Amino acid sequence: MELIQLRPIGRLETPYRDKFGVPRQAGLVSSARGRLVLETEFRREEALRGIEECSHLWVVFLFDEVPEEKARLSVRPPRIGGNQKLGVFATRSPFRPNRIGISACRFLGVDRESGDGPALILSGMDLTNGTVVLDVKPYLPYADMIPDASFRLAPEAPERLPVRVAEEVAGVFANIPEDQREVILEALSLDARPAFHQEQGRTYFLRIFDLDVGWEVREGQCVVCEVRDMK
Amino acid sequence: MELIQLRPIGRLETPYRDKFGVPRQAGLVSSARGRLVLETEFRREEALRGIEECSHLWVVFLFDEVPEEKARLSVRPPRIGGNQKLGVFATRSPFRPNRIGISACRFLGVDRESGDGPALILSGMDLTNGTVVLDVKPYLPYADMIPDASFRLAPEAPERLPVRVAEEVAGVFANIPEDQREVILEALSLDARPAFHQEQGRTYFLRIFDLDVGWEVREGQCVVCEVRDMK
Repeated sequence: MELIQLRPIGRLETPYRDKFGVPRQAGLVSSARGRLVLETEFRREEALRGIEECSHLWVVFLFDEVPEEKARLSVRPPRIGGNQKLGVFATRSPFRPNRIGISACRFLGVDRESGDGPALILSGMDLTNGTVVLDVKPYLPYADMIPDASFRLAPEAPERLPVRVAEEVAGVFANIPEDQREVILEALSLDARPAFHQEQGRTYFLRIFDLDVGWEVREGQCVVCEVRDMK
Repeated sequence: MELIQLRPIGRLETPYRDKFGVPRQAGLVSSARGRLVLETEFRREEALRGIEECSHLWVVFLFDEVPEEKARLSVRPPRIGGNQKLGVFATRSPFRPNRIGISACRFLGVDRESGDGPALILSGMDLTNGTVVLDVKPYLPYADMIPDASFRLAPEAPERLPVRVAEEVAGVFANIPEDQREVILEALSLDARPAFHQEQGRTYFLRIFDLDVGWEVREGQCVVCEVRDMK
């Protein structure tokens, strides 16, 4: 069969250190900032001229942490309970042929200060650190915003859990920089528990920034109960 | 450099026989219907289960008619007059690294009647016949519709030209099936003239369906002045 060869145009720097707990769409954790660091050949002002006229960018990326052989024709999406099988083309599952994803992220500006610039500063990221990027395009409101679009299987953004920090870790948590705390609380509110075991009392870990954040769901609340420094 | 190998998941059937005159974004010619014919291994109901719950689909495709060596770091987009150079990542130009495009199309249903089905019926297509498709995903309103997004270089859909059919071809034109006439008139209203020669009186040809449609712009009107059958 005909094969197509692509190459990375860059890589993302994001707060998320592994797949577990990453928001399942862009924009859900609006405080999560990241950078798209371009490959050397694209680190040129001429490739970006005019980009500051956009408020949002499409990032076309590769789900490179998903092993190719795990692509499926049907999947069990967590949003609809994880026990209904859907065709992969009816979902945004990462377990898909070609493993291509698209995310519309807010574009905050060009980073020209770092040694690896010009790089793009983005927020609302829903991707793990190191994700391979294949393309970047402006979000075109007149073409991409479709007010009469609907998807009955996931008509609205997921509901949020209230999040609180357990007393025994309140001190450690308060020492985390404020912008990082905001991202952690926003990410935890999305309830990353796998749909197939929603039992109470199990501790999960979100690896984010340089932290391993333990959390549980107790009586409909997400409770941060452990904070470990991974450095 | 690290290379990534992808393969077509399918190919598009659209009215547009060559690149000239193809609308520059999806949805601009809403009457233009097409089909996504899947590769044999994906022609399976299980790959599509649930897709009928979507009103719109993202088609991720390859600009396969653009020679790879013509990818540029900066381009002159026709929408902004064709004489301003912009970085390729600030545009939707097809002359781009990896030649990946994304189009949000209306999804009309699954074609199970033809021998090459199940295939997806789409409208609002902005792609040439035969375009290689890499992925299909549901349009997720809660993530993809961004009401506060803006792109100052192309804030609105392009203006339309009035289109009329010259008397000498009115008879031939009337013999074209009505749904095809609608697509032709809608496509011509977008004024496909290259930005760099807007002079009057030049005849251009739109190759669409099995027709070669000649048109000119006269005093701000698009005039259909020739209709040839290509069969």
